[in-house]
Amino acid sequence: MSEYIEHDSDGVTVGQVEKKYFTFAEPPHEMELESGARFGPITIAYETYGTLDADKENVILILHALTGDSHAAGYYRTEDPKPGWWEIMIGPGKGIDTDKYFVICSNIFGSCMGSTGPSELNPKTGRPYGLDFPVVTTGDMVRAQKALLDYLGIEKILSVVGGSIGGMQVLEWCARYPEMVVSAIPLATTTRHSALAIAFNEVARQSIMADPNWNNGNYYSGSRPNLGLAVARMIGHITYLSDESMRLKFGRRLQDKNDFSFNFDADFQVESYLRYQGKIFVDRFDANSFLYITKAADYFDLGKQHGAGRIVKAFSKTRAKFLVVSFTSDWLYPTYQSRAMVKAMKKNGLDVSFCEIVAEWGHDAFLLSSDRLTNLMQGFLSRIYSENRS
Amino acid sequence: MSEYIEHDSDGVTVGQVEKKYFTFAEPPHEMELESGARFGPITIAYETYGTLDADKENVILILHALTGDSHAAGYYRTEDPKPGWWEIMIGPGKGIDTDKYFVICSNIFGSCMGSTGPSELNPKTGRPYGLDFPVVTTGDMVRAQKALLDYLGIEKILSVVGGSIGGMQVLEWCARYPEMVVSAIPLATTTRHSALAIAFNEVARQSIMADPNWNNGNYYSGSRPNLGLAVARMIGHITYLSDESMRLKFGRRLQDKNDFSFNFDADFQVESYLRYQGKIFVDRFDANSFLYITKAADYFDLGKQHGAGRIVKAFSKTRAKFLVVSFTSDWLYPTYQSRAMVKAMKKNGLDVSFCEIVAEWGHDAFLLSSDRLTNLMQGFLSRIYSENRS
Repeated sequence: MSEYIEHDSDGVTVGQVEKKYFTFAEPPHEMELESGARFGPITIAYETYGTLDADKENVILILHALTGDSHAAGYYRTEDPKPGWWEIMIGPGKGIDTDKYFVICSNIFGSCMGSTGPSELNPKTGRPYGLDFPVVTTGDMVRAQKALLDYLGIEKILSVVGGSIGGMQVLEWCARYPEMVVSAIPLATTTRHSALAIAFNEVARQSIMADPNWNNGNYYSGSRPNLGLAVARMIGHITYLSDESMRLKFGRRLQDKNDFSFNFDADFQVESYLRYQGKIFVDRFDANSFLYITKAADYFDLGKQHGAGRIVKAFSKTRAKFLVVSFTSDWLYPTYQSRAMVKAMKKNGLDVSFCEIVAEWGHDAFLLSSDRLTNLMQGFLSRIYSENRS
Repeated sequence: MSEYIEHDSDGVTVGQVEKKYFTFAEPPHEMELESGARFGPITIAYETYGTLDADKENVILILHALTGDSHAAGYYRTEDPKPGWWEIMIGPGKGIDTDKYFVICSNIFGSCMGSTGPSELNPKTGRPYGLDFPVVTTGDMVRAQKALLDYLGIEKILSVVGGSIGGMQVLEWCARYPEMVVSAIPLATTTRHSALAIAFNEVARQSIMADPNWNNGNYYSGSRPNLGLAVARMIGHITYLSDESMRLKFGRRLQDKNDFSFNFDADFQVESYLRYQGKIFVDRFDANSFLYITKAADYFDLGKQHGAGRIVKAFSKTRAKFLVVSFTSDWLYPTYQSRAMVKAMKKNGLDVSFCEIVAEWGHDAFLLSSDRLTNLMQGFLSRIYSENRS
């Protein structure tokens, strides 16, 4: 179990992890966003695990995916029973060993888990931003993370690690701040969304915006667009699984073993699963943040942003060593997209390890327990750690 | 051009095709549905093309997919400029040659294109059925088609042909009325939906039912659930394409070539395409019919219904000759599902031709112009026609 678990005198599980906040870009020093808009103040929620070495050479920056948060590992001091979202990977002796590394994870700019996003209060109006919140990009998210690292006095990242949309931020870090990044682990990701990935995001956004409760983004004082957001989440869940994983997980098994309902209830277990995933999601996530983050993901185009349209050029400044990992059954960001990224890295003479992991669980595989992934990451990080010191 | 195109004295295109109606199961002779419910009267809209031979040995039955109708070929006498949905395949000298064959296509039971479905008036109440309409199955649809053929005095089908949900009806015909079917062409279909296919249908249904205008199916006298239905259609369109076809058709091309909008307008062409497909769909299709037909497709399970759970047994009664066709980029009903069907047919010693067509257009490929498919079907039908006469 984690070092972050304790039990109080009544035997209740408590933890040692704490969510912290950092605020910057206070007016008149707003941040100029990639859209051209100026925006501030910006608060970033973050957590750290492990201990920063005196020479600050052991920093690992974790970047989360669409609906993640800063709580990547361990347990809070409160009675919240849920560990961080990557507890299987981050902790003492784990793939990302907190006995060795100082791990930072922050909630992305635009989200709803403590960092500034559309659901936060606009200090100018005293009401939530809603659609007055500017469209932010992956570049803007990474610049906010950079401000946090400046604040923490960190100038070098031993490894920047993330999957899916977190992986896009990993790539953005390498291109934008090449002098800071020693190594990088982009997992189950892409240098830019395919038309298919954009299509899924767009349909999910349309589902939210079709909900009358969405009300052009102004719903914080009334009913929320929960039905639309639930459908958006259900669409997402389909893309996180795969034909094979759904067959293994659900097949055609019925909720009621006897027979079909002959009505529009959930007959099949896969229907029930999706309905449940939609239902629980609306309690923890903001519909507007879903719109903003998916838009940032669709806009992300590493070659366009950092290579004048050429992906090879986008990797020309970084000297980071890479561990690129894809998963066989991931059809949201298929392996061919990782291979293209690896090819572009190699054309720049970079030190790249690439592994396609045989996994049946689709895009979700990067978050699931896998000895293969754990060993790969542990080995890669150990090598980087040693090479960086020698 | 088609034999069905004419021009009147003003040069306006008119046609010779006519939609006809057949009504049966009038009370007290209602049809007992697979759900156990008794239902009637049932009207089936249908069209025919070509001429029935004196010996009635040249009948080809066409079965349409989810949102199709009886208008498979030719032009109506009215000024409606649109030909039938399979005009590229059906007509004089075409893959299904109307100089040779008598072609019948009917709108499926439960649809909204002339056959009885949830949007039709319930004669008992004088109001549209809405959710009082019973959940029908693929078996019920095929039994209604059988009633139409009885009415037309047809006892033998030279070939029963359909793709997607139409292909499921093809398989149902072979299992249910083996004595009538000489040959069958199931295209881009499956003997039962995978969990993935059910998942997409369920999310589409949830999108419709989440629209407040849906109002538990009672919307015919007020605003329709157009926003929910549009999202459902957008989900469908993603499944009809493929990663590759979307890349070829749209890639990351923008609507406005200059740059991103930095708002929630459609930036990418693929977004605009999906929004347009959703928008035009709601003018021609009924949301409740979408629910009923997708449910019938999810319920369809040839092995369960006709083989006590065994797909090999489900093909044990038919002596039909088969041409099974799948498409490489179809990820809704992938080739492995057609291969499993072919294997089961062959275990029964059936005469089966199988072809996987290399196509980049995903599931939609079965409806698109393809010399390969046209030649395959033409050759297969010619052989069946000759063998049946000899």
